Amino acid sequence: MAVYTDVPDEELKAFIAEYAIGEVVSCKGIAEGVENSNYLLRTESAAYILTIYEKRVDPADLPFFLALMEHLAAQGIACPTPIHGKDGKALRRLCGKPAAIVSFLDGLWPRRIHPFHCAGVGGALARLHKASASFAQSRPNNLSLAGWEELYRSCAPRADTIKAGLADELKIEIEELKRLWPKGLPQGVIHADLFPDNVFFRGETVSGIIDFYFACTDFFAYDLAICLNAWCFESDGSFNVTKARAMLAQYRAGRALAPGEIAALPVLARGGALRFLLTRLYDRLNHPTGALVKPKDPVEYLQKLRFHRGITDAKAYGF
Amino acid sequence: MAVYTDVPDEELKAFIAEYAIGEVVSCKGIAEGVENSNYLLRTESAAYILTIYEKRVDPADLPFFLALMEHLAAQGIACPTPIHGKDGKALRRLCGKPAAIVSFLDGLWPRRIHPFHCAGVGGALARLHKASASFAQSRPNNLSLAGWEELYRSCAPRADTIKAGLADELKIEIEELKRLWPKGLPQGVIHADLFPDNVFFRGETVSGIIDFYFACTDFFAYDLAICLNAWCFESDGSFNVTKARAMLAQYRAGRALAPGEIAALPVLARGGALRFLLTRLYDRLNHPTGALVKPKDPVEYLQKLRFHRGITDAKAYGF
Repeated sequence: MAVYTDVPDEELKAFIAEYAIGEVVSCKGIAEGVENSNYLLRTESAAYILTIYEKRVDPADLPFFLALMEHLAAQGIACPTPIHGKDGKALRRLCGKPAAIVSFLDGLWPRRIHPFHCAGVGGALARLHKASASFAQSRPNNLSLAGWEELYRSCAPRADTIKAGLADELKIEIEELKRLWPKGLPQGVIHADLFPDNVFFRGETVSGIIDFYFACTDFFAYDLAICLNAWCFESDGSFNVTKARAMLAQYRAGRALAPGEIAALPVLARGGALRFLLTRLYDRLNHPTGALVKPKDPVEYLQKLRFHRGITDAKAYGF
Repeated sequence: MAVYTDVPDEELKAFIAEYAIGEVVSCKGIAEGVENSNYLLRTESAAYILTIYEKRVDPADLPFFLALMEHLAAQGIACPTPIHGKDGKALRRLCGKPAAIVSFLDGLWPRRIHPFHCAGVGGALARLHKASASFAQSRPNNLSLAGWEELYRSCAPRADTIKAGLADELKIEIEELKRLWPKGLPQGVIHADLFPDNVFFRGETVSGIIDFYFACTDFFAYDLAICLNAWCFESDGSFNVTKARAMLAQYRAGRALAPGEIAALPVLARGGALRFLLTRLYDRLNHPTGALVKPKDPVEYLQKLRFHRGITDAKAYGF
């Protein structure tokens, strides 16, 4: 939960006056999202999300993220659409920080994952990849191999305080992934963080995809591998192949997977698990006492990583 | 900021099905309020606030609070109206805790207080007192003299760690207030916690009063004294008599103050300052490390208390 900036009335009023969306009717900080401050804004015209970008997002990346959302929304993807001000700009400043208003999306993100959720996410991810293929901009994935090595170097000295032997296991894993990482798979802009709290449903239908602030250029199949990690494990660590099968089937119904993409899935899934293991480990080790956001458990992703390491054939995912 | 309970989809759905308000369209935890978990709930019919009552509210008091809000709303006060379920009940359980749905109120609470805000609050408080006069139920104020002594006993051993000499100063103050506390002033159900974050404005007009979870039976003038403390001091500790004058004038335009109420105001204001000084002191001393809500500064209220102690004539408040 997070709202890091309290917006004074006058500043909010002046900010909203830059847009043609009517006057503010209400504005409430939302206790979700750990990267930015988000407010549910209602004006005389409609409901919106006002986001103030806090320090974890690089301001230089914001034009990319906003342009991506605008492109995807124009392609019919149910994602937040940046609202342009009277001056044509979607990105401006509030309380001395970058800020933007985007459209509000109905729906609830699922707390308990059922196979139909996984099917819905698979289909939505395929549509997202097809829509992003026509997006001209690119952004390197700084949380891939080079980024993992950097995170590893920062975490290694204290990694074993979280789990005995973790530093060695991470070192070996990174070396193996450098050797095994696929080349030349179909790529484009991926979401790269499509966890359950970023996907809204109404009933069994996906009604919205949010939080594009990790979007980057990488293999489409890597995005799918991240989703397998995020959606198809039970809380006891077991892999639910019914969920994975539902996700993969709906993804393939929307976008065909090349044989090379399928074959690479176990390695990509190891990479996806390692990425969240490392960022969670970093957050846990660098967590200031008394911070508002409790860091997530890195060990959950160590278990997932080990699961994928044991997979020799992508059929095990439910193909 | 506070959302202590994460509501699983199925439980939310089953809960909402108990009401005739349509299906859930969205539900977002609100990063405001420190006592309960609040969600901005939108259904097919309208916007609501869903509140899950956490441990700080005594469940035995909830029927009183909900009945009060319903009474006040029926009298035309812009306050949350409890929504009754199909079974007629406004109070039920969600995630094993008491929970209720109330109407949503438009408006923003002011971050920067102007004299017009103080005038608005004065008028709204007078209307509240007139409306509550016809409310038949009562609830003792457990944060008056006896409650202060109890808080004092709990805090005294460590009070000086917050401010040197604080324990002695509190002891003397409580003794004096016991001696000086007025008797027989007009009384009824008061809000008892009408701080800026509990009053919504649209433009210069009060559009809503929320958070009745400290409401109790006490002197109406004590409620006014709490508002003087909460609204009429600047952040540097100075008392803004223009704001106080605006508040008092609008209050009196709505409800006449008897001479005894005016004369008692300096003592009541001392009591109001002491009440928030003691609860803030208690929260500060008993603040678990890493808690989500950062306790407010008790010393702010020590300064206010000293200001009121220096007032010999209520005229100093701007009468």
